[in-house]
Amino acid sequence: MAAMQIKIYQDLMGANDEWAAKTREFLKSRHVPMVNIIGSPGCGKTFLLEKSIVALRPGRRIAVLEGDVATTRDAERLAVLDIPVSQLLTNGACHLEAKLVHHALLDLPLDTVDMVIVENVGNLVCPAEFDIGENAKIAVLSVTEGEDKPLKYPLLFRECKAVVVTKIDLLPYIPFDLDTCLANIQAVNGHVPVFTISAVNGQGMQAWLDWIASVKN
Amino acid sequence: MAAMQIKIYQDLMGANDEWAAKTREFLKSRHVPMVNIIGSPGCGKTFLLEKSIVALRPGRRIAVLEGDVATTRDAERLAVLDIPVSQLLTNGACHLEAKLVHHALLDLPLDTVDMVIVENVGNLVCPAEFDIGENAKIAVLSVTEGEDKPLKYPLLFRECKAVVVTKIDLLPYIPFDLDTCLANIQAVNGHVPVFTISAVNGQGMQAWLDWIASVKN
Repeated sequence: MAAMQIKIYQDLMGANDEWAAKTREFLKSRHVPMVNIIGSPGCGKTFLLEKSIVALRPGRRIAVLEGDVATTRDAERLAVLDIPVSQLLTNGACHLEAKLVHHALLDLPLDTVDMVIVENVGNLVCPAEFDIGENAKIAVLSVTEGEDKPLKYPLLFRECKAVVVTKIDLLPYIPFDLDTCLANIQAVNGHVPVFTISAVNGQGMQAWLDWIASVKN
Repeated sequence: MAAMQIKIYQDLMGANDEWAAKTREFLKSRHVPMVNIIGSPGCGKTFLLEKSIVALRPGRRIAVLEGDVATTRDAERLAVLDIPVSQLLTNGACHLEAKLVHHALLDLPLDTVDMVIVENVGNLVCPAEFDIGENAKIAVLSVTEGEDKPLKYPLLFRECKAVVVTKIDLLPYIPFDLDTCLANIQAVNGHVPVFTISAVNGQGMQAWLDWIASVKN
């Protein structure tokens, strides 16, 4: 009987979880925690990072991995802060996967940083499904998106270790009810800490900075 | 030789395109065009629909298919307008596929409607990749998301037949440069019509209504 060529299709999510576990172990051995920032396009993730990175230094030195479908714009915005930053281009895919993150981490100067922040692709759905080896997922929701998003995109809000509600300086101009939003967050993730902030005027930033600085492996 | 059981895995995107082609032919035979509205979570898709459906009647009677990951909130918002509306739940998936849309269409009272509007899952990435048999994809972008989104999520802005820039009533309160945004849209899709609107105060709505009323099979 002639030898057969058998193609093997590995469970993709299983392979992802293996890379994520490897990353988590690697970062623990280096004493560098990693957080995974997830939110809609335009919810203010990059601006939140810009403000947070400056406010946290010199005590917490941050490196950033920027996930995007196309362009290196966000990495360029952060590179001017003189921090280690790499752009992870998914070339069309709507989320980051653990293997790409792992290889990018190997190229970061981890001896000189206290924390890695990953900014995922702007998307409330798929990034929540993929473990990339982070110590905490963080959901970012801008008030201009409406109070109902935690109910409509429940996986992220259930999986995350903190929620940052951004752009509260715009509250006077929009029909957004903060109490309803907080109740909706609580409905899917009872005890998750929620930080309501304006990265523009600094309101609420200190509590958020204290929290993220406390994330550990 | 005993009969073998062979599992067949069909190319998923190929199967999707077959359903989309079937849908396009079916709707053409019924003289009912269909548009596919795509944008970020919270960019104002449902509110735009509410205002447009009321403004377009009685000349254009609209039926709606509401795509969501979870909850029937958006379909409930539109049902009060006394129109045919169905909720398509993806149960976690980040986009609508053609087969689900096709079967939902078969249950709509197409004899009593002039157009079907599909509101896709809130997501700038994956919905742009899946043909659902529509006659036009329409990209919705709110000014609070920033001018750079057409460059960062180019597929949707390249594939669409029109762009609706929403929430322009908020322009006085945010650092958004409309000319830069329009240049970015033009960079990926030179001649696409762009409608800058506020569904809150009605600014720019008439040009958008005239355009969507003109979409044909």
